[in-house]
Amino acid sequence: MTVPGPQDPPPALPDGGLRIVALGGIGEVGRNMTVFEHGGRLLIVDCGVLFPEDEQPGVDLILPDFRPIENRLDDIEALVLTHGHEDHIGAVPFLLRMRPDLPIVGSRFTLALVAAKCKEHRQDPVLVEVAEGQRSAHGAFDCEFFAVNHSIPDALAVAIRTPAGLVLHTGDIKLDQLPLDGRLTDLAGFSRLGDEGVDLFCVDSTNAEVPGFVVPEREIGPVLDGVIAGATQRVIVACFASHVHRVQQVLDVAVRHERRVAFVGRSMVRNMAIAADLGLLNVPDGLLIDMDSASSLPENEVLFVSTGSQGEPLSALSRMARGEHRQIDIRQGDTVVLASSLIPGNETAVFAVVNGLVRLGAQVVHQSNAKVHVSGHAPAGELLFLYNAVRPSNVLPVHGEWRHLRANAELARQTGVPADRVVIAEDGVVVDLVDGKAETVGRVEVGHVYVDGLSVGDVGESTLSDRLILGEGGFIAINVAVDHTSGRAVAPPTVSGRGFSDDPKALESVVPLVEMELARTEAEGIVDTHRIAQAVRRVVGRWVAETYRRRPMIVPTVIAV
Amino acid sequence: MTVPGPQDPPPALPDGGLRIVALGGIGEVGRNMTVFEHGGRLLIVDCGVLFPEDEQPGVDLILPDFRPIENRLDDIEALVLTHGHEDHIGAVPFLLRMRPDLPIVGSRFTLALVAAKCKEHRQDPVLVEVAEGQRSAHGAFDCEFFAVNHSIPDALAVAIRTPAGLVLHTGDIKLDQLPLDGRLTDLAGFSRLGDEGVDLFCVDSTNAEVPGFVVPEREIGPVLDGVIAGATQRVIVACFASHVHRVQQVLDVAVRHERRVAFVGRSMVRNMAIAADLGLLNVPDGLLIDMDSASSLPENEVLFVSTGSQGEPLSALSRMARGEHRQIDIRQGDTVVLASSLIPGNETAVFAVVNGLVRLGAQVVHQSNAKVHVSGHAPAGELLFLYNAVRPSNVLPVHGEWRHLRANAELARQTGVPADRVVIAEDGVVVDLVDGKAETVGRVEVGHVYVDGLSVGDVGESTLSDRLILGEGGFIAINVAVDHTSGRAVAPPTVSGRGFSDDPKALESVVPLVEMELARTEAEGIVDTHRIAQAVRRVVGRWVAETYRRRPMIVPTVIAV
Repeated sequence: MTVPGPQDPPPALPDGGLRIVALGGIGEVGRNMTVFEHGGRLLIVDCGVLFPEDEQPGVDLILPDFRPIENRLDDIEALVLTHGHEDHIGAVPFLLRMRPDLPIVGSRFTLALVAAKCKEHRQDPVLVEVAEGQRSAHGAFDCEFFAVNHSIPDALAVAIRTPAGLVLHTGDIKLDQLPLDGRLTDLAGFSRLGDEGVDLFCVDSTNAEVPGFVVPEREIGPVLDGVIAGATQRVIVACFASHVHRVQQVLDVAVRHERRVAFVGRSMVRNMAIAADLGLLNVPDGLLIDMDSASSLPENEVLFVSTGSQGEPLSALSRMARGEHRQIDIRQGDTVVLASSLIPGNETAVFAVVNGLVRLGAQVVHQSNAKVHVSGHAPAGELLFLYNAVRPSNVLPVHGEWRHLRANAELARQTGVPADRVVIAEDGVVVDLVDGKAETVGRVEVGHVYVDGLSVGDVGESTLSDRLILGEGGFIAINVAVDHTSGRAVAPPTVSGRGFSDDPKALESVVPLVEMELARTEAEGIVDTHRIAQAVRRVVGRWVAETYRRRPMIVPTVIAV
Repeated sequence: MTVPGPQDPPPALPDGGLRIVALGGIGEVGRNMTVFEHGGRLLIVDCGVLFPEDEQPGVDLILPDFRPIENRLDDIEALVLTHGHEDHIGAVPFLLRMRPDLPIVGSRFTLALVAAKCKEHRQDPVLVEVAEGQRSAHGAFDCEFFAVNHSIPDALAVAIRTPAGLVLHTGDIKLDQLPLDGRLTDLAGFSRLGDEGVDLFCVDSTNAEVPGFVVPEREIGPVLDGVIAGATQRVIVACFASHVHRVQQVLDVAVRHERRVAFVGRSMVRNMAIAADLGLLNVPDGLLIDMDSASSLPENEVLFVSTGSQGEPLSALSRMARGEHRQIDIRQGDTVVLASSLIPGNETAVFAVVNGLVRLGAQVVHQSNAKVHVSGHAPAGELLFLYNAVRPSNVLPVHGEWRHLRANAELARQTGVPADRVVIAEDGVVVDLVDGKAETVGRVEVGHVYVDGLSVGDVGESTLSDRLILGEGGFIAINVAVDHTSGRAVAPPTVSGRGFSDDPKALESVVPLVEMELARTEAEGIVDTHRIAQAVRRVVGRWVAETYRRRPMIVPTVIAV
């Protein structure tokens, strides 16, 4: 495969320079983690997870690749977290396993979510709380924090000052000019930085392909109000468990229409309790009830706020759609609102949930038929405002697939950043900022690190490739016992298939085929079990390809007794 | 699972009534096949395939379930095909295997595609060509055909007259009022039928959730022109291999910008040859060249029209995106246009192709960043025109998932069709039209029929469920040989895993565990190989769940020697 950019290990970082390497998050959407190096010391921004796709079956999570820093753990001054989404904090416990005393720097809500996550991992991290307008020094890295508007409260951008220059990292960002909580993205602060001179601007690319501007979050409230005003039975609203402002609007509408509210889903219950504790979610007394009480209320006096908006098969909403939920059975006339994005790759699962709910008689409102969701990421129009405020010398698009990175790069160029100062990188590409100029100087190896069950890293490409073969075609196992001196079969071979056919006779002709082959290997004096296994694999593989035109895994086992 | 509607087998069809059962295509998008019954005789409309999703791994195609008609093959008067898309004709060869002399009725282009398909299956079908404005009688079924505009030429709607009443089936339909070929959907003809009185209207639901109208196909031409005018290197346009009008516009633009054209992909080459033969595609002399000639032309004098717009991994476009195509290596400055829809479920694959192309330096134009595709299905605004022209007594939404069917039903009601005359069915639901009233009267069993390689139907739910388990977690195979009288192990057990772990030591502790268990079964005097296998499965399953929290398939094999 042709790979753009440099392929070699990078040269030593020149004295006084700043080095930037993403261990995740550039060239993909998720597992954001960027390492900054100056004077032999490191600062990390974000440490998130990526959720697996079809080509990674059985994988629970994908982590950033820590290998480039695993021998330099003591060099890390701090981990700065821009906000509390899983793709920015999800891998924190895995990094803490390697360096338990690593200072973790973030806003109050972000750290509360990190603390809850670490508690589940029985970890007790060192947390350093910061807020917009504050500065904190971590070795030679002088950090300044700026309020940022996103689909979770308390998000921050971070400016990092070193002798090599000033870097501004947006984290995830948008520019809602009428935010629900009044907390604007600090464009004025960014402009001040621009006056000072931003040497490198790392910019969220997620929506760079989308033209225009995002509608304010607050415009969703009246839409929800209209939907819920018209509902005569139960209402279920599904959204992300960290989208406090979205949930706030749902609660406000519930109050207005005299419905009590029950939270459904472990993360929804947990996060909203944290948000309410921190004063980020306003919950009127007596509004919340538990599921059992909700089930006993009249149908037009209750509203459920649920997880499961991405069609996760084990979620409460999916179980409702299949008619398998213990407490909530969807009936003709119920209303379900998916107040959420449709993350690419989840379409089939989400529409399966929608179809299941519709089939049971529910009215389902989602972003394709009503304005019940707005994105949390700045589209092209808003990104232009950012570039014009910051006026950066160099730009590094982050958070995005290649199509997003290129689109973002093009926007930077349109605002006047010279083309050779817009650096498109991907995970592992090493970018050095030296004498005010950023350029790619090399590449370190960065792969996918898979979490499957309790273990990290033992599932790799070879296991996944076997899973894909098994998942497509199943396997045919042939067991043979031969005498260890003569190579003669001491019992008839057994043949069994799994994931191959529902027809019990499908493999009937394999036994005589294998017996014939064993007679041949015996006649040739072959006693080596590996060679016998190879012969068996060959005849069975050829037979199945000719007879069925399929490619199951052929698994011969030969025991010498 | 709660299933709406009747669950029982239907009663006998009353004399003079018409019975309608979908064997595919209602409650899903694909494998359209509707059976009409009157006076003991059958007429079938369409016979298509469905493409599998993630839950159907390894499956090549999904067929309609022929079981409800397999004992009545001689009762079938004819198979009427509305148009030549795979989801309407793809299963024809499989039906012909059961009834080779079945008359197949359709338009010229539709039958040409069917003939090409049947030739690949070495079949020689009985073809009955019809055209808009014509009638053809098939037993008691008197069919009249109407021109319909869709994303393939020569599509037809069919009106079926029987003594039970008049049925109008749209097939796939839209109402482009400025079609490229001047062949309008015959709304005037539909109005005439409406005057006569349409007893049952079967209506395409695909876009019923989408508000408004489809932009005319001809508006894509100028967009393509703009893109190709600005291209200085190679241009590759990917689209569906049956979308003759789309390809025509690409050819016209190529001529205008003095580029020669090469078709890439077997189905593209085949279908465009058929279309040109039938005068549906206008190809100026000397425009077409083959791939080898194309590779040797200057880059700004060539344009490729390719398949692969849905991210099919083996397609030419996917290979280009991975840098693995033999003749076309994408370079900085090349232009790729995906002039196609993004079929739900294909997003991940399509964006992988887009990202791969962008990464290699191509400019990629697709429907998210330019108007290079319009849908072939009528959205809500156009469906209202249809209902108001036809003024049906009863409506049966077809071609759609539940969300589409409900949305379409709602449109019918809004135009004045009484709610109890709008019948929402799904595959297998039996609808009877008796005395001018349509209602569901029962249900016949209709499942998914899978084609995997050469065989049909032997891969069923049990095989698929095994494939899903194997694909998620792989398997651990334990092979044991015991003495058939004592139950004592005659050789050390062998343990091997595939798709479980990359770590060669991952299963090290399984052998002693199994040995301990075999000692126990031997001590208890157990010699039955099934019981020994069960014991082995239990201890290994428990061990892997506790140690790894994973669920591989555990496959013990015990041979008695």
